[in-house]
Amino acid sequence: MADQKKFLLNETDIPKRWYNVQADLDVPLAPALHPGTGQPAGPDDFAPLFPMDLIMQEVSQDRWIDIPEPVRDVYRIWRPTPLFRATGLEKALGTPAKIFYKYEGGSPAGSHKPNTAVAQAYYNSIAGTKRISTETGAGQWGSALSFACQQFGIEAKVFMVRASFDQKPYRKSMMQTWGGTVTASPSDETNAGRTILEGDPESPGSLGIAISEAVEVAAGDADTKYSLGSVLNHVLMHQTVIGQEAMQQMEMAGGLPDMVIGCAGGGSNLAGIAFPFVPEKLAGRDIRFIAVEPAAAPSLTKGKFAYDFGDAIGMTPLLKMHTLGHTFVPNPIHAGGLRYHGMAPLVSAMADAGLIEARSYNQTECFDAAVLFASTEGIIPAPEPTHALKAAIDEALICKETGEEKSILFHLCGHGHLDLSAYDNYFSGNMVDYALPPEEIAAAMESVPQI
Amino acid sequence: MADQKKFLLNETDIPKRWYNVQADLDVPLAPALHPGTGQPAGPDDFAPLFPMDLIMQEVSQDRWIDIPEPVRDVYRIWRPTPLFRATGLEKALGTPAKIFYKYEGGSPAGSHKPNTAVAQAYYNSIAGTKRISTETGAGQWGSALSFACQQFGIEAKVFMVRASFDQKPYRKSMMQTWGGTVTASPSDETNAGRTILEGDPESPGSLGIAISEAVEVAAGDADTKYSLGSVLNHVLMHQTVIGQEAMQQMEMAGGLPDMVIGCAGGGSNLAGIAFPFVPEKLAGRDIRFIAVEPAAAPSLTKGKFAYDFGDAIGMTPLLKMHTLGHTFVPNPIHAGGLRYHGMAPLVSAMADAGLIEARSYNQTECFDAAVLFASTEGIIPAPEPTHALKAAIDEALICKETGEEKSILFHLCGHGHLDLSAYDNYFSGNMVDYALPPEEIAAAMESVPQI
Repeated sequence: MADQKKFLLNETDIPKRWYNVQADLDVPLAPALHPGTGQPAGPDDFAPLFPMDLIMQEVSQDRWIDIPEPVRDVYRIWRPTPLFRATGLEKALGTPAKIFYKYEGGSPAGSHKPNTAVAQAYYNSIAGTKRISTETGAGQWGSALSFACQQFGIEAKVFMVRASFDQKPYRKSMMQTWGGTVTASPSDETNAGRTILEGDPESPGSLGIAISEAVEVAAGDADTKYSLGSVLNHVLMHQTVIGQEAMQQMEMAGGLPDMVIGCAGGGSNLAGIAFPFVPEKLAGRDIRFIAVEPAAAPSLTKGKFAYDFGDAIGMTPLLKMHTLGHTFVPNPIHAGGLRYHGMAPLVSAMADAGLIEARSYNQTECFDAAVLFASTEGIIPAPEPTHALKAAIDEALICKETGEEKSILFHLCGHGHLDLSAYDNYFSGNMVDYALPPEEIAAAMESVPQI
Repeated sequence: MADQKKFLLNETDIPKRWYNVQADLDVPLAPALHPGTGQPAGPDDFAPLFPMDLIMQEVSQDRWIDIPEPVRDVYRIWRPTPLFRATGLEKALGTPAKIFYKYEGGSPAGSHKPNTAVAQAYYNSIAGTKRISTETGAGQWGSALSFACQQFGIEAKVFMVRASFDQKPYRKSMMQTWGGTVTASPSDETNAGRTILEGDPESPGSLGIAISEAVEVAAGDADTKYSLGSVLNHVLMHQTVIGQEAMQQMEMAGGLPDMVIGCAGGGSNLAGIAFPFVPEKLAGRDIRFIAVEPAAAPSLTKGKFAYDFGDAIGMTPLLKMHTLGHTFVPNPIHAGGLRYHGMAPLVSAMADAGLIEARSYNQTECFDAAVLFASTEGIIPAPEPTHALKAAIDEALICKETGEEKSILFHLCGHGHLDLSAYDNYFSGNMVDYALPPEEIAAAMESVPQI
């Protein structure tokens, strides 16, 4: 048999705690600001939208937070997840590097999103929440939250961007299978939706509008809370089960990696794989963390590190983050999960402090990498993690030149079985790249508030 | 923590041999007959279509056949697969039964099909085959074979039924991602295709026509062989890696099951999970094997055990099997993998000998079961294994009445992420059942040859 390919853990190895990187950062995060007053927002400001347990996790400085047993119980459906060595890809590249990937595509929703959806649904359930509202673009987050809510007997109310609702009925069916209620956005169920529809009855919707609808529903109903699938500190923390497992598996594979690579849209993908390795770096070990963005939404590489709104309309608290301006609407790349104007405050602060590197790629070169990966490793990746894959390949090719046997770990956060239309687009030669020219970036950033 | 949910093996536990049930059957299988002469067909008759290693496996009486290391090497991409206890489903049913499922949805193609595709591609590669032709309906088998061929540097030529080719572009993209060449059938590349197109230029095609095209291409080119995804003895044998792993895992879970359930279209699904348990039954242990068919194609429950052709046109050797008549075209149920007029000779012979029970269900009741399963276990099943699931639930409900704590193992052979349109059809209330009335069955069976 060739080199070991698969590093598997047992059910008892599912992490018992989430790792909170806030505890290890030198400088505390800049506080969120109230959108009305501009003053630091306190827990009570978030109470209409989130249960208090999650609000306290958002600001916690504890290094470890116990994972409740009912959450671990649901994690057992797909966790622990496998870590693979990409022996086929290494061979095709002719690199002396060792490439590893942590694969989250085996979850019910086919991505890493359920790791936080389950935690959020659980804390809402013990707080008495009857319903959770959220937004979804192509449907990945809405699927994960529907699944999670059903596990805890909560109703999921998902506002799905109208264009996707019409074009992607499959994700809608997935949410319905898990008991989710899916509403095309803009809808006539909210003031925000009605206002948009009055102006344009044929509006295709946008993530910004869907957020506004979901937040409005939660704010107006004591039994309903709101949920976000990335960006916030507690969301990133829930994803650290990925990196904790990966650390155990990398030890089985011979030791810590030289670099950890994740794609970055809102930031929870990279955070999940990388944050558990941060204490090793802070202790002096030479580990690089690489965030990989789409060139169509390059907040970390091209944006400003400043206070900005989380949504397009300016209803949410202001967060200090790398942003392209909250009114910026990224072009329709296939990696829908990376189409966001901002970046998680934690990832932003760590990038600002030099702990995290960032780079960006166009989608066509990412799909080139994806097809090479599928032909050598078998798994067809979702569009989002092809960005991390592309960076891993580039690093492995550098090793080929230098002869270094580096160990590269990247996060393959989901399979592409629900994204085959993107591959169809690639093979038909119609894929368009959308690298942002400087003048568009400058124009977009004019919407960053002057604070 | 609740009862253990997941039973995981290590890479070293991937089976090293396939189990050949032919060695343990009292009576040898009836020989295949040459379609022209009606005489028993020898290895040479199959040589234009299959490499000799596979032909010899087809007739082998050896109990164990070593799995070549290059095949195990590819298996390592997704094997060993997990076995779960369906604790959530048990609770929802209120049954004292223990329900277990072996899950093959984590393979690159999302189903169990690669287990044999990889083996077939390997033996073709060492025989010098340059290209393998095959047919595919919705695309599941064509995907698996494309993946497998790419692993061994062989070209995959897939004739895909025109109706699916037009309606299901995603499976086509999947095959292309793995380097497969996909041709809509009927095509103008073969005599069979041209004949059909002359009669009906708009022909939507059928599996029977696609088989004819694939066989014609293989028969006419020394560098091209043909491949079948089920029915034949060697195909069923390759799938026994599933049941062998499941046996190890059931031992971890407390012992052998009281019944083993699989859906049955061509037969490889049931064979894969059940055959490795056959020696236990033959040794006197009380294990039931249950084959579950769609009511729309009930070959085992309603068909005749007789010699018939494998394809619709009558080009293949005659096999003794349960059949509804080779000209029978099943109605368009969503479980495309179960739409076959016949049944594997091995499964047929064992059913005839009373070793295997059979039953059938309508698709709506299977989707009822699927939605219950998704809500309790998280995984959304492909339409085919919902038949096995439905039977497992019915057996668990019998246990609820009798109070028996039976152990039920069923085969969840694939996820439904590529079949969400079927769920859409179910939720929209448009799903149609197609239980066959006796007169239609009688009419179909008139095409069974009088031998």
